[in-house]
Amino acid sequence: MLSEITLRIEKIQSPLREAGADALLVSYNANIYYTALRFFRGYTYIPAEGEPVFFVIKPLGLAETLPNAVQIRKPEEIPAKLAERGIALPSRLGLELDTMTWSDIERLRKAMSPSEVLNGSPWLRKARMVKTAAEIKMMEFDGVHQTEAYRHFTKAYREDMTDVEFQIELERILRLEGCLGFSRVSGALMEINMGSVINGDNADVPTPYEFAMGGEGVDPALPGGANGKTMKPGTTVMVDMCGAFNGYQTDLTRVWRIGEVPELAQKAHDCSIRILRALEEAGVPGVPCADLYNLATAIVEEEGLSDYFMGHRQKAAFIGHGVGIELNEMPVLTPRSRDVLEENMTIAIEPKFVIPGVGAVGPENTYQVTPKGLRNLTPLKEEMIEL
Amino acid sequence: MLSEITLRIEKIQSPLREAGADALLVSYNANIYYTALRFFRGYTYIPAEGEPVFFVIKPLGLAETLPNAVQIRKPEEIPAKLAERGIALPSRLGLELDTMTWSDIERLRKAMSPSEVLNGSPWLRKARMVKTAAEIKMMEFDGVHQTEAYRHFTKAYREDMTDVEFQIELERILRLEGCLGFSRVSGALMEINMGSVINGDNADVPTPYEFAMGGEGVDPALPGGANGKTMKPGTTVMVDMCGAFNGYQTDLTRVWRIGEVPELAQKAHDCSIRILRALEEAGVPGVPCADLYNLATAIVEEEGLSDYFMGHRQKAAFIGHGVGIELNEMPVLTPRSRDVLEENMTIAIEPKFVIPGVGAVGPENTYQVTPKGLRNLTPLKEEMIEL
Repeated sequence: MLSEITLRIEKIQSPLREAGADALLVSYNANIYYTALRFFRGYTYIPAEGEPVFFVIKPLGLAETLPNAVQIRKPEEIPAKLAERGIALPSRLGLELDTMTWSDIERLRKAMSPSEVLNGSPWLRKARMVKTAAEIKMMEFDGVHQTEAYRHFTKAYREDMTDVEFQIELERILRLEGCLGFSRVSGALMEINMGSVINGDNADVPTPYEFAMGGEGVDPALPGGANGKTMKPGTTVMVDMCGAFNGYQTDLTRVWRIGEVPELAQKAHDCSIRILRALEEAGVPGVPCADLYNLATAIVEEEGLSDYFMGHRQKAAFIGHGVGIELNEMPVLTPRSRDVLEENMTIAIEPKFVIPGVGAVGPENTYQVTPKGLRNLTPLKEEMIEL
Repeated sequence: MLSEITLRIEKIQSPLREAGADALLVSYNANIYYTALRFFRGYTYIPAEGEPVFFVIKPLGLAETLPNAVQIRKPEEIPAKLAERGIALPSRLGLELDTMTWSDIERLRKAMSPSEVLNGSPWLRKARMVKTAAEIKMMEFDGVHQTEAYRHFTKAYREDMTDVEFQIELERILRLEGCLGFSRVSGALMEINMGSVINGDNADVPTPYEFAMGGEGVDPALPGGANGKTMKPGTTVMVDMCGAFNGYQTDLTRVWRIGEVPELAQKAHDCSIRILRALEEAGVPGVPCADLYNLATAIVEEEGLSDYFMGHRQKAAFIGHGVGIELNEMPVLTPRSRDVLEENMTIAIEPKFVIPGVGAVGPENTYQVTPKGLRNLTPLKEEMIEL
């Protein structure tokens, strides 16, 4: 356990030192979990060299069992506790400016009184972007259980069900398979319960959220995903549900159809599978993420399907994204991305189409980048499944 | 619809003007929903006097149907769009410093270049703390459906079930009753799926989260709530599950027991009910929240139950909290609170006990503050229910 923590801390220390910082003080939930292998309320102090110190506010008792941990009541106690351990106060201090609130950052700035505050968020994103062997193992576990749950989805269907009723049964199947029912997301632009079930024309309703697909939702407070309409013959149902079976997650989409669907929908679905095969082969370390995006759109253009790709009335600007502790990590597969694939990145690829009057099509898999190409962590039949 | 928006905007403008601000630019999800009656990605601009302007990034098309809305691609376009409408750029600008990230705030500061940034978060908390008639109606709806779902929970139990298996069935019952399965919370210190089911000794496991009760959880990434242990005779099961049936929510806890439980647990549960009755009568406009807290602890001390009140190994520092769009709103019932009850505040009160070896006891209701005392929005039998 401790060596895994050391490995992660060293991955963070590398960009930290490159930026000329003396230390990084971590408090964002996903990063606390990343640095301590468990979530606690408090702070992980990471010096430019050497071991981290975990400042634990809650739960009581944890500081007694976690190595290098110190119990505190509030962050203002950190400087004195560091001094007790013979650690000099950092002059150039990294804080998570992209994820912590303005008020949280100001409180930490006052408590630590550094000469300069640097943005530590990119260092953490960069470290977390390439997974360790232990992280890959956790995501393999997620993939095994998520695909196993998906195998049971077809039998949850009953004629004249609404999309919400169908989704409720899928949620139960996932939970019984061990899904935590909760996964972390970065930023405020993804609010959803356990995922998205998009049925028929609801696929073409624009959403305010940053998901690849839209949907009206059942309430104006949460305008995304299923909208409570009955599932009808000749339409598709896209299922993109929670893959968090531990602190990590995989991201998996499959498409069901109710009876026969128009040829255009089938063609688009086949095109999506063709894109996945092409990207699996092309996706080796050293390849720019923008190239993968362009490879996908070239195939879409060749097949004359651009009008429907990644949405119809409103389009998403990416075809894939990193995934791990959070559903949306680095890198993001966009035409303007400057990221380059590295071994052991984990990336969800979702080349999806919205066919007006029919629904959304196109599978999504989560992959590990390897020297031989993309390794599928969510292997499962990709063809449309009849309900 | 528009008059409800006007009512809310005027409630926000009152503290805004008191602070001497020229305008407030809202972007936090819960506050966007509060000001527009629907969630969108973008900004609500609230001048010190007059009508708001809604700057919508997504969904596409919304700006055409929402009155006073303008489509933008990014916040940097706001100053020019204000100028087009003849609105002078605000010099003293309120931003949501307590809920938006440091980087978000800096981007807005650069985009709007005000002479001074003020913290608008307290103005919004204050406005949202006292509900409008329309908000009370939405919470009445939540209460009706949440209590209806709770009435069906007993029949989900089977002998030798784990707490997680029981919780999964309760989630399904709630969802089928119309629960969105997602509710907004303020801050990073409450992560959970659809609520908490705490069984037996798991109640005494400290959590890092700010919930009233603890629990180990099933994974170190999410250490709260059910831990997957079998439910056993002689213990209690506390159920505190999601009450969001629209953009608002009620908060409701009931306790089940498996067979007979020790007298101490029954005594503590009865004490909790006694506290609720006392607070319902005492809770009229003008009463300090701290007085309600002290009234509760006085009853607990009189009954000699202080060791178990609001936790045993780790204690929560409150006995109730505002609830509405978010699960944790103002006011909070703590001994140091400076808030005073006002008519149409909505408050969840949860005087709970943890009895070692038995489990958690004590019901929770959500109330509306009225001149006659607290009006229960979640009326439902409060005695322990046998499984």
